[in-house]
Amino acid sequence: MIETMRWENGKLILLDQTKLPLTTEFITCEDYRRVRVAIKILEVRGAPAIGAAAAFAMVLAGKEASNRPDFVGALDKMRADLITARPTAVNLEWAANKLFNLAKKLNEQDMRPREIVSELEKLAVKIYDEDIKKNKAMGKFGAEILPDEAIVLTHCNAGALATCGYGTALGVIRAAKECGKLKMVYSDETRPLLQGARLTAYELCEDDIPVTCITDGMAAWTMKKKGINCVVVGADRIASNGDTANKIGTYGVALAARAHNIPFYIAAPVSTFDFSLASGEEIPIEERKGEEIKKFRSEITAPTKALTFNPSFDVTPHELIAGIITEYGVVRAPYIDNIKKLQELAKEE
Amino acid sequence: MIETMRWENGKLILLDQTKLPLTTEFITCEDYRRVRVAIKILEVRGAPAIGAAAAFAMVLAGKEASNRPDFVGALDKMRADLITARPTAVNLEWAANKLFNLAKKLNEQDMRPREIVSELEKLAVKIYDEDIKKNKAMGKFGAEILPDEAIVLTHCNAGALATCGYGTALGVIRAAKECGKLKMVYSDETRPLLQGARLTAYELCEDDIPVTCITDGMAAWTMKKKGINCVVVGADRIASNGDTANKIGTYGVALAARAHNIPFYIAAPVSTFDFSLASGEEIPIEERKGEEIKKFRSEITAPTKALTFNPSFDVTPHELIAGIITEYGVVRAPYIDNIKKLQELAKEE
Repeated sequence: MIETMRWENGKLILLDQTKLPLTTEFITCEDYRRVRVAIKILEVRGAPAIGAAAAFAMVLAGKEASNRPDFVGALDKMRADLITARPTAVNLEWAANKLFNLAKKLNEQDMRPREIVSELEKLAVKIYDEDIKKNKAMGKFGAEILPDEAIVLTHCNAGALATCGYGTALGVIRAAKECGKLKMVYSDETRPLLQGARLTAYELCEDDIPVTCITDGMAAWTMKKKGINCVVVGADRIASNGDTANKIGTYGVALAARAHNIPFYIAAPVSTFDFSLASGEEIPIEERKGEEIKKFRSEITAPTKALTFNPSFDVTPHELIAGIITEYGVVRAPYIDNIKKLQELAKEE
Repeated sequence: MIETMRWENGKLILLDQTKLPLTTEFITCEDYRRVRVAIKILEVRGAPAIGAAAAFAMVLAGKEASNRPDFVGALDKMRADLITARPTAVNLEWAANKLFNLAKKLNEQDMRPREIVSELEKLAVKIYDEDIKKNKAMGKFGAEILPDEAIVLTHCNAGALATCGYGTALGVIRAAKECGKLKMVYSDETRPLLQGARLTAYELCEDDIPVTCITDGMAAWTMKKKGINCVVVGADRIASNGDTANKIGTYGVALAARAHNIPFYIAAPVSTFDFSLASGEEIPIEERKGEEIKKFRSEITAPTKALTFNPSFDVTPHELIAGIITEYGVVRAPYIDNIKKLQELAKEE
């Protein structure tokens, strides 16, 4: 089984995803700053995985802050620094704030920093464990609504490697395989950083799930020619009206799915919802260096003089989304009402 | 000025486009078989350029056949071999047949093979020269219908490098620049072989035309966010109802353009029309080796075990096309009628 990260003797061990599929290397993080760098340069990526890594980073930050006179103030500064690593995936903020709020609360109850850190560690481990449980729940709900003989197109990697295990979109695919419903997965390569070719194809091959690699420009034609009967992708942030930010390219896939009457599903845990945002217009979209577009690892692909536009994400409007598969079930239109209900449901727990 | 090919002392000199933008190397072809290989491995590519290269290849084939007892029979065999190099671009067949038919006619008139070859050479040079003229005419017609402050998205390379000079889609862009209408060109990189990044961006930079590189998955989002107000692409084969085969990814771009109410234009000379085909369903679509998807030059991008689907072209249905810019003017819907008129017009000349 692929292990995206593990917490071992107070250290966070991360699989270096930039080197996959050729090399399996691990990074040992003893400082929250190293986790921040790993998030920034995509050694760890995928919204839920970023969330869990951020939780462990906050444990490391807590340890460091416990030696400072102002424990909570110092921890807050490190939290603020950590969440600037990447702007779009809301799970980063969600996890960092969750741990910080616990620390603040326990501090107000006069618990000693060392003990607080131990509580933070428990919460981080819980976030990690629950992530896998949530993915299995999503898998179950998702597999139910997939067609028999499912031929699924997916974009980027919302798999075990994007989470603590099993995956969100790929969790749905794994569950469909387990109940004998899966015929084929088409995986968009997902330029510029190739998470589809490098990570999705890799982890599906490892699990003997049939996968066909295509380039991003082939998605629409493949829908037309290869009998794709559903699309399932992950998400980095979902607004309260269902508008969904996900890896750049998702919006084009959703438009092509609509043109072919193919249902387009998002699979994401509740931690991916940003209930404070009315619509996708308000989601901050990360732009990365043009070099990612003008190079292909060591290979130069475009002239130096050419300009670039390199948004890491796009927003798919809720009108194009047939359903959002969560750990509580599948949320469908009308999204504003049903996402409100989901929020209530999630609060109760 | 970029020189895609030149005919010099009875030899065809081809720019090796697989090595651009980093290296400018030329290939000297003294045998039609070398031209065939160049077409097959995309050292020369782009439907009109393939057509012109095929014409010169037929001159080389004619020279070889002139030493054989059955000149016409030998030439026909070489013609048949040549046109199997790539199946989709109709210009290859169009040019090879044009030269062969001339040879056959002159042979029936008892002209000697050596003299026939000299006539073939004249015709090939004429095809080459006329290609540039046609592109300038297309440029004029195209620039007229482009919006003021045009922000154009293009896919693949339908430029000087895809033709004998000036380009079809990029000819329209060059003409728009010349008359002060062009604000920006967005160039899809066009995986797997990156003709957009390597060739389109390169030749626009060389001509100081502002160009922004994006990956294929960014096209839809760029339409939404960057004020794209028209799409212009080339074509490899157009059926009599206007359905158009062009580089894989074009169909997805056309769907995204439709969703954003952006006019989507094809720029192609009459030699790109296959009047014998009723619709795009009948256009043969080349599939290439999966290695192109799983590798980028030296870089491995996907696991060995993964399957691939690698169609080189897709077909954009005529409903998505706002107009086809030809050397005779812009053809618009109803396509069946207007393409018939175009055919008549082209026959007269």
